[in-house]
Amino acid sequence: MSKPYVLGIDIGGTNTVFGIVDARGHVVASDSVKTLKYSDFNDYVNQLKEGVGRLLRANEAEDKIQGIGIGAPNANYYTGEVVNAPNLPWGPVVPLAKAVSEAFNGIPVAITNDANAAALGEMTYGAARGMRDFIMITLGTGVGSGIVVNGQLVYGHDGNAGELGHVIVKRNNGRICGCGRTGCLEAYCSATGVARTAREFLEIRTDPSELRSIQIEDITSKDVYDAAIAGDKLAKEIFEYTGTILGQAFADMIAFSSPQAIILFGGLAKSGDLLLKPIKESLNQAIMPIFRGKTKIILSELRESDAAVLGASALGWEAKYRADINPSAPQSNLPVEVAAD
Amino acid sequence: MSKPYVLGIDIGGTNTVFGIVDARGHVVASDSVKTLKYSDFNDYVNQLKEGVGRLLRANEAEDKIQGIGIGAPNANYYTGEVVNAPNLPWGPVVPLAKAVSEAFNGIPVAITNDANAAALGEMTYGAARGMRDFIMITLGTGVGSGIVVNGQLVYGHDGNAGELGHVIVKRNNGRICGCGRTGCLEAYCSATGVARTAREFLEIRTDPSELRSIQIEDITSKDVYDAAIAGDKLAKEIFEYTGTILGQAFADMIAFSSPQAIILFGGLAKSGDLLLKPIKESLNQAIMPIFRGKTKIILSELRESDAAVLGASALGWEAKYRADINPSAPQSNLPVEVAAD
Repeated sequence: MSKPYVLGIDIGGTNTVFGIVDARGHVVASDSVKTLKYSDFNDYVNQLKEGVGRLLRANEAEDKIQGIGIGAPNANYYTGEVVNAPNLPWGPVVPLAKAVSEAFNGIPVAITNDANAAALGEMTYGAARGMRDFIMITLGTGVGSGIVVNGQLVYGHDGNAGELGHVIVKRNNGRICGCGRTGCLEAYCSATGVARTAREFLEIRTDPSELRSIQIEDITSKDVYDAAIAGDKLAKEIFEYTGTILGQAFADMIAFSSPQAIILFGGLAKSGDLLLKPIKESLNQAIMPIFRGKTKIILSELRESDAAVLGASALGWEAKYRADINPSAPQSNLPVEVAAD
Repeated sequence: MSKPYVLGIDIGGTNTVFGIVDARGHVVASDSVKTLKYSDFNDYVNQLKEGVGRLLRANEAEDKIQGIGIGAPNANYYTGEVVNAPNLPWGPVVPLAKAVSEAFNGIPVAITNDANAAALGEMTYGAARGMRDFIMITLGTGVGSGIVVNGQLVYGHDGNAGELGHVIVKRNNGRICGCGRTGCLEAYCSATGVARTAREFLEIRTDPSELRSIQIEDITSKDVYDAAIAGDKLAKEIFEYTGTILGQAFADMIAFSSPQAIILFGGLAKSGDLLLKPIKESLNQAIMPIFRGKTKIILSELRESDAAVLGASALGWEAKYRADINPSAPQSNLPVEVAAD
């Protein structure tokens, strides 16, 4: 067998992107299928199998795949299942790892949620190389997190650890969050949260802003970004508000695990200094003195288009490794069905 | 050599307690010296050496000590140093692990802060036996924490992780905390915090209470406990207030590491249901739905008099183990000076 590969699969709400990745983190080739084309889970898996099969054949990689890693919303590393994923149509509990392993002749499969996959990608190929303690914060439609402690992802006793988008940042009069509670970090510091802040600021305040030329219900975080870059004072203050809340939340996260770095990833992270500057100022003010100045706040070094697939592929190598060292016994850290293959 | 022992040392603000502990967690014998008798660090170490020496001779254990574990305020596992401990008089940075190892002929020494030592004790001999993910919360004069993830203590990149007494629970108008900030969990939910709450309640409210018979500046958490047990309504509400804040803080901690249990230790934890009931109610209300009902809130199973020494002794076994597998090379997880012995 020539060069070994793994397959990284990123299941998003719109597209399922998959890539053949070599041991150096080079995405040899990638393609995608529509995640929502089939509402039946078996049909979805067949579609994925066909799409991946085509890519493997086109790259003469059919016999070279050593493991498969999958990042998906609400994917549980321990059980191999996707549970109650709000944007996926296949039912409340889906045996993703088992089904994909079966579709690919028993190749070891490991799955985790998208933010954990991003953290693994960053640790293996990105800004967190060589770090044993860091926190990845994904600032997209929601706020996700992947936490690494002692060089290992934190899954918790049930596989659901790392929901830092849902720590409470406003205990009184907080915004309603998609999780059913109020005051979560995600309700303020996601892309949607920034748009909500814009609407609040525009309603409550009277000062002029470029943003007033947009229908208030249509404003997006991109609009706020464009206005801020163009010098709009109110738009800049929206980023300051967002960054201040993030910095305060980061101070509490640092008190927990004292990471070497907090790494920002996702659409909002591209705002650069507009967001980084108020985060750092707020963090420096909010943090407990013994931690001050020690934790770096940095941006992901992975291209967003590659990151999810690379992160998932890192999990694919892990799946292969675990299957190698323990080919028969069920392992607590791997989906039992897969470990038993 | 007959039965091997380790030495567990707990350095408190008043007493330094040390015990000879066997492999089954039995404290064979223990004694103590006064922590503050000497303001010079070398004098303190000599005093400790003499005290321990007497205990070892009396128990014919002089050649049986395999490792020494020490729990001390602000003790750093990585560096072996005690840094800026507010209640210890020996200067800003004290090379504790190195000095103790030298005093005892190079026996491997590992040190950590008192809350981490308690967590190790609980994992090895107490309520957390068999748990790979739990959080120990010590409710004493302050609020401390020891966090275990994937079966390992969380030290963070600098050895200072696990300061959960200093997450912010009141972002606005919060009480001043000993750490120099405002609104920390410790300012509300330590023994001192409970006394502060009592003073606030008594000043702001007008309803009768047994506590009004005590000079307001003299009220302690013990007074509040006694009044609550006697049925005093205001005293009971002070415990409800304290437990509610703890439950809310626990919800955020669970979002981080999804522990199997949060274990309460220390003076306030002895309040039992007075505190546990409001904690559980508040947690159940505050927690993110996917975590609801999964994390147990339980009390330590270690006797307080033994816990610190037992926890430190667990670290002593670890020090011995690490020295055994790597007798010469400096290890990142052990004080370099000790590992190199």
